[in-house]
Amino acid sequence: MAHISVPDGVPGIRSLVMFRPDTGKHLYDLAQVLLREPSPLTPAERELIAAYVSSRNECVFCMCSHAAAAREFYDDQAQVVDHVLQNNGDAPISDKMKALLNIAGKVQRNGKEVTPDDILKARENGAGDRDIHDTVLIAAAFSMFNRYVDGLASFTPTDPKTYDDMGKRMATIGYVLPQQQPK
Amino acid sequence: MAHISVPDGVPGIRSLVMFRPDTGKHLYDLAQVLLREPSPLTPAERELIAAYVSSRNECVFCMCSHAAAAREFYDDQAQVVDHVLQNNGDAPISDKMKALLNIAGKVQRNGKEVTPDDILKARENGAGDRDIHDTVLIAAAFSMFNRYVDGLASFTPTDPKTYDDMGKRMATIGYVLPQQQPK
Repeated sequence: MAHISVPDGVPGIRSLVMFRPDTGKHLYDLAQVLLREPSPLTPAERELIAAYVSSRNECVFCMCSHAAAAREFYDDQAQVVDHVLQNNGDAPISDKMKALLNIAGKVQRNGKEVTPDDILKARENGAGDRDIHDTVLIAAAFSMFNRYVDGLASFTPTDPKTYDDMGKRMATIGYVLPQQQPK
Repeated sequence: MAHISVPDGVPGIRSLVMFRPDTGKHLYDLAQVLLREPSPLTPAERELIAAYVSSRNECVFCMCSHAAAAREFYDDQAQVVDHVLQNNGDAPISDKMKALLNIAGKVQRNGKEVTPDDILKARENGAGDRDIHDTVLIAAAFSMFNRYVDGLASFTPTDPKTYDDMGKRMATIGYVLPQQQPK
């Protein structure tokens, strides 16, 4: 049961933004810009960073929902997502993505852990300022979303199909407040 | 030096939102709603939670700037801020604020650490759903801001007067993108 009175049976952050829509609006707008609007990183790569950070924070709701969204975007390469969540080192991803996931993993612990060498490694593998900026901000933002969802003990569904459906919705309509979603 | 090319000499998050204003806008809007718009917690209490979480994340820029804003709001009780940042237990604050800072400190580590007993303790001391929600979201949001600021190694001024001036500005005009601030 959630720590505060939120709508029954509504999962994760959706229940929290229904409790306080005026902060929820900015949280959803941030997710939409950060994960969907133009970036040198694809939506698949950005959802993967979100799922990776959520996995390291053991936030089951965010990990399962963003992993599902990443699988939608990776399409016939969806197995990449589970490789990364199980063991980043062996995953069939580019060296650039490996270097960016290393940075995201450090940000998940504490921003100060990112070293000039981590940045250099990313640049040597083709990352530019925007790749680095967006990676750090996604990792930082999911350090927030994970804590919001778990700190208030919001409802975490256990049925995998729920997350598959959520992933499809996130990959098509994106991040829109529940109150404003098409019926 | 920051890990990416941001305007020279511009401190902390200000330099980062100048680098990417479309995400910066939502970050500043979130801070404004969360720290200034109506809440059962005063702006002083909310800035104190922000400074406390930033202190635990060792984010010097966020800690110094939000402590300065909190001192402005606490006015002739400004010493409360330093008491809390030095040792929460002995600080001259209400039992409700002590219980909420305990929750914020747990969220800073991981949202899952917040227990029903922590919530009960806050409620027994007068906290309602909105106090609890806002405390958790402030602690979560500063877990993001701290990581954004430090993960990109943005400029951290060392002169205390810089933070005093920042605190005055934060307590008067609030959170407005640098590009949109009055000259």
